[in-house]
Amino acid sequence: MSPPWPNGRKLVHLDLKGAPPRIEYLHQLMALFSELGADGLLMEYEDVFPYEGELRLLQATAQPAYSPEEVLSIQEVARSRGLEFVLKQESLRELRELDHCVGTLNPHRAEGLQLLMKMLRQVVDLHPDLHTLHIGADEVYLLGEGEESKQWLASPGRTVEQLFLSHVTKLAKAIKEAWPHMNIIMWDDMMRGMSPDTLRASGLVGLVQPMLWDYGPALDVDTTVSLLEKYSSAGLSELWAATSFKGSTHVHTTVTKTQRHVDNHLQWLKVAAGVSPGVKLLGVALTGWQRYDHLSVLCELMPVALPSLASCLETLVCGQFGGEAQSRVMQRLSVSSVEVEDLESSGASAGDPFVGRRLAEIIVELTSTLNSEDVCGFENSMCVRGWLSPYHRQRKRVSPLIAMQIHSQATTYLTALEQKVEALWEEMRRLYPDSVVQEWIEQHVVPVTAPLQRVTEDIRVCLEEMLPQKDPSPSPAAPTERPSVGDE
Amino acid sequence: MSPPWPNGRKLVHLDLKGAPPRIEYLHQLMALFSELGADGLLMEYEDVFPYEGELRLLQATAQPAYSPEEVLSIQEVARSRGLEFVLKQESLRELRELDHCVGTLNPHRAEGLQLLMKMLRQVVDLHPDLHTLHIGADEVYLLGEGEESKQWLASPGRTVEQLFLSHVTKLAKAIKEAWPHMNIIMWDDMMRGMSPDTLRASGLVGLVQPMLWDYGPALDVDTTVSLLEKYSSAGLSELWAATSFKGSTHVHTTVTKTQRHVDNHLQWLKVAAGVSPGVKLLGVALTGWQRYDHLSVLCELMPVALPSLASCLETLVCGQFGGEAQSRVMQRLSVSSVEVEDLESSGASAGDPFVGRRLAEIIVELTSTLNSEDVCGFENSMCVRGWLSPYHRQRKRVSPLIAMQIHSQATTYLTALEQKVEALWEEMRRLYPDSVVQEWIEQHVVPVTAPLQRVTEDIRVCLEEMLPQKDPSPSPAAPTERPSVGDE
Repeated sequence: MSPPWPNGRKLVHLDLKGAPPRIEYLHQLMALFSELGADGLLMEYEDVFPYEGELRLLQATAQPAYSPEEVLSIQEVARSRGLEFVLKQESLRELRELDHCVGTLNPHRAEGLQLLMKMLRQVVDLHPDLHTLHIGADEVYLLGEGEESKQWLASPGRTVEQLFLSHVTKLAKAIKEAWPHMNIIMWDDMMRGMSPDTLRASGLVGLVQPMLWDYGPALDVDTTVSLLEKYSSAGLSELWAATSFKGSTHVHTTVTKTQRHVDNHLQWLKVAAGVSPGVKLLGVALTGWQRYDHLSVLCELMPVALPSLASCLETLVCGQFGGEAQSRVMQRLSVSSVEVEDLESSGASAGDPFVGRRLAEIIVELTSTLNSEDVCGFENSMCVRGWLSPYHRQRKRVSPLIAMQIHSQATTYLTALEQKVEALWEEMRRLYPDSVVQEWIEQHVVPVTAPLQRVTEDIRVCLEEMLPQKDPSPSPAAPTERPSVGDE
Repeated sequence: MSPPWPNGRKLVHLDLKGAPPRIEYLHQLMALFSELGADGLLMEYEDVFPYEGELRLLQATAQPAYSPEEVLSIQEVARSRGLEFVLKQESLRELRELDHCVGTLNPHRAEGLQLLMKMLRQVVDLHPDLHTLHIGADEVYLLGEGEESKQWLASPGRTVEQLFLSHVTKLAKAIKEAWPHMNIIMWDDMMRGMSPDTLRASGLVGLVQPMLWDYGPALDVDTTVSLLEKYSSAGLSELWAATSFKGSTHVHTTVTKTQRHVDNHLQWLKVAAGVSPGVKLLGVALTGWQRYDHLSVLCELMPVALPSLASCLETLVCGQFGGEAQSRVMQRLSVSSVEVEDLESSGASAGDPFVGRRLAEIIVELTSTLNSEDVCGFENSMCVRGWLSPYHRQRKRVSPLIAMQIHSQATTYLTALEQKVEALWEEMRRLYPDSVVQEWIEQHVVPVTAPLQRVTEDIRVCLEEMLPQKDPSPSPAAPTERPSVGDE
């Protein structure tokens, strides 16, 4: 048992770069975050922000996910719930140097900085009370590989570290010039290997507050403490921690395991207890990534991660996650387990279900079917490997009896999946835009259904040729007007 | 340790219903079987026999695998090696009753029996010294479900057992009439559940010699002994055993595990030691199935199973398979292990390599690559699931950097496989017809390469759209004039 998290903010990270909740659901979520013990929001709009003018092309879709009025309403709700509002604006992650990377910003062009400031101005204008800005600045691993960077680096004594630091310093200064009272948070990962002297010489001291992220259930406490001490000794003594309550298990994970994330928070409590008094931990951001990066699949949606979020917040408050803490979480969410996988069907629970609980149940159930060896390993099953190889399919030379058995089994699986996907559609579109439902299905369901459909289709064609008058078996449920679960 | 196999034949089963070896290789194999201690062949031509006249349509290919002269040469070589020649002619397996089954023979039509006798006459004519015929008669699970059978069965007191027995009796009598001195072997499986009285009443006593098959490494000794005693008590006291040295692990197995098959033989030795003196075990057939059934994929080819065959024969001779027996096998085959998977590359071994050893090595190596998690699980790898889902592929919306990494990895695997397949072609076509090599590749390699090729192709298309002037990376080795390993 550790002491509880020291004073300072507990921000819940709302990653909107994928699956932006419908505005009503977002309002409900914020109310819940507050009830669960959060006192701030770390808001990451990315491409769902309603940019205007020439910046409109930054939006993910023709219509922004939220209107300017809705962005204001979010802050209004946050304020009414006592949630401080911190804005996370990616500035350097998108600073791409090489033309096979998506962006083309590079640190040598003044236009790059100007564009960032234009974006920030629109965003800050729509957040009149804002006093903390997270500028990202993480994982720019390719920095230094562009042509101009190579030239710049060719001069003696110049390093990629300096290139990075000078760019961030320029940006931070421009922000302070525009909004003198703005606090600036940045990710620390690019600075982890830098010496205290390099950091001290960078001009960043007094300008930024590094946020250390580590999402591992077994993060190394000593290493993390040393890192905090190093930043502090370099003059960067105002620091933040970033934990994880979802979105850090695997790139394609769809169901959150609470214990894994509670363990991450328990480790962070040891870190907080282990640093010297000179280190000022201003707060912790509980990150809840929606995707690993801008172009990866959606990972866990908010509803399946709410038991984890509640448990992680409780862990920070109690300094542990024993039976009593678990009971409080279960009571607060009206659930019978802190693991979303173990929830009993909503009907059984007393009290109000948490927001999105029905969707969480459907996703848990659907994921379990999708991951079952029988379904996702169907193409590698004995029957398919033995009697329906590419050789058989191409030559339309199959054993009718076995082909019909395979067809019937595949159809059974497809029908079961269609029904669950039907339920998913119905529930998920209440909380998320249709395009998000469509995306989730194409990323998590179709990889499993496509091979099943290839099997049934190939058998249909073979049998049609061998037994012209016969249909192998009734087709799966007739397609609805919605896009089907197949890709073909 | 059991007593060695009692007197009686040790027949090696040559299943030619798939991958018929080239005639020179077949001659070499027979010489080897004799050296290894076999004293007979159980020959199963099925559709590779050179039928003539109206029966020509039974052949698998336009050209029969063996000419009449070659069929005679096989017997000549067998005779010169002291191998008794037993012919296995499927008669009832193909007796299909239902129209979704491949054949249409049913036991109620005289034409069915006439057709069988026509086939047998051609086959026996080309085997002048033949005195034992195996008529199959196994696994006719659908017998009784045809329309005429249902009518026949509708009369009181009639059973499927009687339907089966009366058909086999008719056939056996017709054979004895045509060739009075012919011994007739049949599989026992359809009779396992029948009572001694039913068997005794069937008229089969004195006509046929049942062959009990059990290929399990842990076959139940007591059950098998009881079964032998039952047949014997019903008057069917001349019996055969069928063990397995390959082709009984999984329908798609390509590499034989010797120990599994040695274990099967050790169990059979216990059976032989356990039966009463009244049971006359005329011999054992060491089966080496080439496929599970007529329409399934090829399983283990002969070269990968020769260490197993040698070990199984040695087990029968010694009554055990300890260090000395293993040494004799290793010496006889000039190998460093009785497990084909553990052979050192041919270069290292002293003495002549066994026939087909190089091909065995290539298949072992190729199979190991095909089964490696990285290669056969590529479509389920983190990167592909996270950044190249159907959603990404369909929208041609990929992260160029990650897509190029995925493409490069898939290309590496494909190139490695192409090289191994190249070596396979070269070696395998020396022992088997080209069509067999082609079939093996489409059944065992293409299921793994097709998804890899889908991945590289989808990425190529995506990147072509995003970066028109760039090729993602060098293509895999240029296709040879031989069919490629892909299905597209």
